[in-house]
Amino acid sequence: MNSNMKCFAQASTIALLWTASAASASEGMWMPNQTADVGAAMRADGLQIDPAQLSRLDAAPLNAIVSLGGCSASFVSPEGLIATNHHCVLESLQYNSKEGEDHLTNGFLAKSLSEELPATPGSRIYIVEGQRNVTADMLKGISADLTGFARHERLDANRKALIAACEEQPNRRCDVRAYYGGASYYLQQKLEIQDVRLVYAPARGIGEFGGDKDNWMWPRHTGDFGFYRAYVAPNGSPRPYAPDNVPYRPKNWLRIARQGLKEGDFVMVAGFPGTTDRFRTAREVGFNFAHYEPLWQRWLSDYAAQIKRATAGNRTAQIRYASILQGVENYAKKLAGDLAGADAVGLNARKVTEETAYRNWVAGNPALQARYGEAIAELDALVEESSRASLQRRGAALLGQAQILSSARTLYRWAKEHEKPDATRESGFQDRDRSEIIGRLTRVEREYLPDIDRKLFEAALEEYHRLDAKDRDTAFETALGQIGLDRLYADTKLADTATRLGWLDKPAAAFEASHDPFIKLAVALYPGDITAERTDKDLAGRTEAARATYMQGLLAYRKAIGRPVYPDANGTLRLTWGKVTGRTQDGQIWTPFTTAEGLLAKHTGKGEFDAPEDAIAAIRAKDYGPYVAPALGTLPVDFLSTVDITNGNSGSATLNGRGELVGLAFDGTLDGVITDWAFAGDRNRSIHVDSRFMLWTMDKIDGADRLLKEMGVQRASGSSAPGKRS
Amino acid sequence: MNSNMKCFAQASTIALLWTASAASASEGMWMPNQTADVGAAMRADGLQIDPAQLSRLDAAPLNAIVSLGGCSASFVSPEGLIATNHHCVLESLQYNSKEGEDHLTNGFLAKSLSEELPATPGSRIYIVEGQRNVTADMLKGISADLTGFARHERLDANRKALIAACEEQPNRRCDVRAYYGGASYYLQQKLEIQDVRLVYAPARGIGEFGGDKDNWMWPRHTGDFGFYRAYVAPNGSPRPYAPDNVPYRPKNWLRIARQGLKEGDFVMVAGFPGTTDRFRTAREVGFNFAHYEPLWQRWLSDYAAQIKRATAGNRTAQIRYASILQGVENYAKKLAGDLAGADAVGLNARKVTEETAYRNWVAGNPALQARYGEAIAELDALVEESSRASLQRRGAALLGQAQILSSARTLYRWAKEHEKPDATRESGFQDRDRSEIIGRLTRVEREYLPDIDRKLFEAALEEYHRLDAKDRDTAFETALGQIGLDRLYADTKLADTATRLGWLDKPAAAFEASHDPFIKLAVALYPGDITAERTDKDLAGRTEAARATYMQGLLAYRKAIGRPVYPDANGTLRLTWGKVTGRTQDGQIWTPFTTAEGLLAKHTGKGEFDAPEDAIAAIRAKDYGPYVAPALGTLPVDFLSTVDITNGNSGSATLNGRGELVGLAFDGTLDGVITDWAFAGDRNRSIHVDSRFMLWTMDKIDGADRLLKEMGVQRASGSSAPGKRS
Repeated sequence: MNSNMKCFAQASTIALLWTASAASASEGMWMPNQTADVGAAMRADGLQIDPAQLSRLDAAPLNAIVSLGGCSASFVSPEGLIATNHHCVLESLQYNSKEGEDHLTNGFLAKSLSEELPATPGSRIYIVEGQRNVTADMLKGISADLTGFARHERLDANRKALIAACEEQPNRRCDVRAYYGGASYYLQQKLEIQDVRLVYAPARGIGEFGGDKDNWMWPRHTGDFGFYRAYVAPNGSPRPYAPDNVPYRPKNWLRIARQGLKEGDFVMVAGFPGTTDRFRTAREVGFNFAHYEPLWQRWLSDYAAQIKRATAGNRTAQIRYASILQGVENYAKKLAGDLAGADAVGLNARKVTEETAYRNWVAGNPALQARYGEAIAELDALVEESSRASLQRRGAALLGQAQILSSARTLYRWAKEHEKPDATRESGFQDRDRSEIIGRLTRVEREYLPDIDRKLFEAALEEYHRLDAKDRDTAFETALGQIGLDRLYADTKLADTATRLGWLDKPAAAFEASHDPFIKLAVALYPGDITAERTDKDLAGRTEAARATYMQGLLAYRKAIGRPVYPDANGTLRLTWGKVTGRTQDGQIWTPFTTAEGLLAKHTGKGEFDAPEDAIAAIRAKDYGPYVAPALGTLPVDFLSTVDITNGNSGSATLNGRGELVGLAFDGTLDGVITDWAFAGDRNRSIHVDSRFMLWTMDKIDGADRLLKEMGVQRASGSSAPGKRS
Repeated sequence: MNSNMKCFAQASTIALLWTASAASASEGMWMPNQTADVGAAMRADGLQIDPAQLSRLDAAPLNAIVSLGGCSASFVSPEGLIATNHHCVLESLQYNSKEGEDHLTNGFLAKSLSEELPATPGSRIYIVEGQRNVTADMLKGISADLTGFARHERLDANRKALIAACEEQPNRRCDVRAYYGGASYYLQQKLEIQDVRLVYAPARGIGEFGGDKDNWMWPRHTGDFGFYRAYVAPNGSPRPYAPDNVPYRPKNWLRIARQGLKEGDFVMVAGFPGTTDRFRTAREVGFNFAHYEPLWQRWLSDYAAQIKRATAGNRTAQIRYASILQGVENYAKKLAGDLAGADAVGLNARKVTEETAYRNWVAGNPALQARYGEAIAELDALVEESSRASLQRRGAALLGQAQILSSARTLYRWAKEHEKPDATRESGFQDRDRSEIIGRLTRVEREYLPDIDRKLFEAALEEYHRLDAKDRDTAFETALGQIGLDRLYADTKLADTATRLGWLDKPAAAFEASHDPFIKLAVALYPGDITAERTDKDLAGRTEAARATYMQGLLAYRKAIGRPVYPDANGTLRLTWGKVTGRTQDGQIWTPFTTAEGLLAKHTGKGEFDAPEDAIAAIRAKDYGPYVAPALGTLPVDFLSTVDITNGNSGSATLNGRGELVGLAFDGTLDGVITDWAFAGDRNRSIHVDSRFMLWTMDKIDGADRLLKEMGVQRASGSSAPGKRS
């Protein structure tokens, strides 16, 4: 057998394996411009509209899909009404609540446009207007021998120039992101709506039913939906909140399906998945699961325990740290799911097998070897180096537990960067980042108590001192030793929000002359931070070159074996499809729908399982109107599907084969999170709230007639919900 | 409607409700002498043998059922072979392991009698010879006006006298326990086998497959079984280990069923359930779930976090504290299950409804009111008092985290008690308790490290200092203040096992003159302990009287409404029956059997999911021999049933309708643990290992031919397992 034959045989095996598993899987977070490649498969699985329509950003359904920056959403009326998850509007509910008006607990329904409330400061709606391949622009001035720090800086400058040019247009927010590890780059241009208003959300006992206990779990009974509205100036152009702003009129909006889903139905999801790591090399995966995630999982679990201990018996402190604790526990749980999942799917072996096939394909052909061989070998060495480096940076994360120290470091960095022209400042510290920085500095006041921060910082320092001396910062340790923890917390003025914000834009010299102990620490840490950052950038520059070539080779290989490839999630618009289905394991079967009766069975009237009384009464009375799923004979709540989504997809529209809204994606299951590293169709299941449950809640419980009408939904005759309590 | 009519109507409603739920439930941990009451129901559900046989302690199957003191077990051969759970022989595997002979990991199989190894010191097999109602003896000298401390002491003296008389017979261990809250008492006489030997256990990757992660979970794939053998002197009487001891020949032993179970089959379980609280009053339940369990759950979670923090990065410390940590986490998980379950079943409301019906029944009839009314009212007040008292005793539990302090307190108490004649010493400090005390003092060496103990003690003291001053012990705090934590750990000699044991039997004066800092603390704590104990005994004496009368009334009420009653679990022999069945919830179905293929799917070769290679190879080859379940078409592993069991039932024989062994009970599911407080047939499921999986492992994997032959099991033709690795 000659080497080409051998390659072919191997490649065929891989392709066959993939085809076999693809039959029941739904792998792929496809870019709109890739739908041509997968359109036939979508049609075969049940898509009823022309796949070509799905590649158009300026036509339905994609131009009804929007980003909230972190969450996904969609227009559902000609008046700029936007549907998303409850957990995506939660901060706005919190922000608008006050003594006697607890919208978070009771829900919120604006009875008219004038009652719609400004969303939490910094809220934005982004409407994608274009995605343009800018690979050539990004590589301007980059030659094969430009590497390390210089290469990184050149890419960074090119990116900033592209963004700045794009953002010269008013009300546009632009980004340039790497696809396929830098094998290509796309510029994404988005219209930025700055006046976002809270329209409606059900009570927390619906929108967050099951809470943390049910998080990442099935069976699920969460009505995780809520509504915003986009507002613009009367002339139609975006501007910040103004009383005489008017609803934005989108070119398209999604229609609510008249017929709901049933088991086996085709569904597709369009949204903005955040991050996946499916193209990491086998070595990176090995390092991540042997060292990085176990370390983080332990630290986060430890950190959660520290927060619980520090706030025990102190209700004020518990409320203040609830959000941080929830985030920490949530991520610790996700990492635990990752670690268990990696073992369960045999991730390492799988990555090695896949990668070996690719490497053999390259090695077996001199031309390919000449083109990709060196980069592949180089990437291996660079992965080793960056793995070591990431462990050496552990200290920085620990010091991040001290919130005022983080603020001080941000402020001093802002001052140092502002000594340069805007275009050359570090990303995140340019004028365009100013409002985000102010938001971050302000938020501290809602999540900080000096006594608790000190306890957590002490615990972090204990761990910090266990690091190797070379991984610690001597200047910081000396400064902290001179100040002492007592003075650190007693003497700082930065715990006051006005004082903290007052430091924004002060010159660096003012920081260097300050006697505020946290500012002293920030100044002490700065040189070490900059040195480490420069080292990291140099490594990044070297890695970017090798990885882009490695990925070009991998794309060629996948093409050779006839396997379509989609890029890792990177926060840009993607499309995925699958079907409504449960999951069978030994001893356990998940059925694809949950029902109102299941919600009733979980309802205890306490804690996470406390649905509103009127909803419980309506369920007991089986007052479901037209929202019954015929095959179930009752009201569906949530459903499972095989679509391929991840963080950032929260709030994504779930569409049927005709492109109509049938639900909203809001979660996955813990034993499927490993899919972020390697798609596992047998275990990957996404969780959606069924549109029939949304409509039932709006119609029968909350009396959201105005919105239903606006969405073109015929209300059930005889519906007479008294209207929202709030 | 007159009051009697009203009572009747209410009682009927309750009875109907009970009958309705009983149809699909299997409530009841029945005393053998109650089988006459439930025999017809058992026959209707599938019992094929005469129910009268189940009331005989001297006939099969009950005389094949034994206690290991904490676990249940059963004779399965004429040569004294005993089957129980893997987790019940685990300490013996640990005890017999040494460098190069890791029986815990690899499993253990004695190839002949002479290779059978002594079980861990203190191991016992108890064979119940008789259960005798001793209520009259217990109440000797007790009049209606004898109450409080004097009543408690009288009951205690009567109990000790009954036990002492029973234990005058050689090799007998006896106990007297309260049934129905002291409405009656039974003396249990047990033959005590002192020479217990380890015969066989599969590898940890079978016996503990799934580990903590699967603990209390379904689907489950744990082969939780192992074997001991009872040895006696050649003359047949029990004696401690001696090389020439011979296997004990039981009168009866269980036969292994030739046909395994299928869905819907009748099963019964005989064993020694430890504790349930189903007869607590509504107020006790209210207090328990509002205050007691939440506090403990928080403390235990906190304690687990402290152990993890204190031992982080220290492998030796982690191994030393593994068993304590596992116990703490296990109990914290159980309590979390209790708390969630109480909400889920609406426990408080249910208890109030049940109790109100009883109270109304009493209140509606002057004769009943005269007999029970006062005790019911009195019990309410006493429950309030004891609830407050239990919270005041919190400090004692916290100080228990310091292991050497606990040892010192035990030793000093032993010395103080030995100033009295044996019969009047405190229970637990009599001569009959000596070996148990030595065992406890010795075990410290395997679970203690001074640095870790100190950290945990410091954390406990932090919590202790948060208690109200009146709930703390001034003498202890003064003594500790004088000593200081540094000297406490630096100067004590009690960390040395020989020194610790050397203090046993020293006079109290020697303790009082000692300069050992932990002994000083123990001496300082003693007066407060004794005062608190006397207060508690006084309260107990008052409560015992009221509760016995309350329960007599409740028994009369239950009889009146035709509802048979079984006593709360109290560690004595009980029988329960049910059927093999899964469980359906909204969105999820548990099927009743797991299979070898499911084990394979969970097997990762790492951590908790690491089955032995030969077992995995045999599963891959589907080498199941005659152990296939026809309806499943493959090898079953574990199964679910509705039997009503709790802690202490671990290792219990699961029998089919003919009284043949079909498996061993080993666990429940977390959302069913609330059943300890109120039976909930819809959620209660017990987990058993299937006898076919046991036999397959013995036959195909471990080559345990000798044992199979002894058990009368025909091996599969062609079986050729090479014999145990160890």
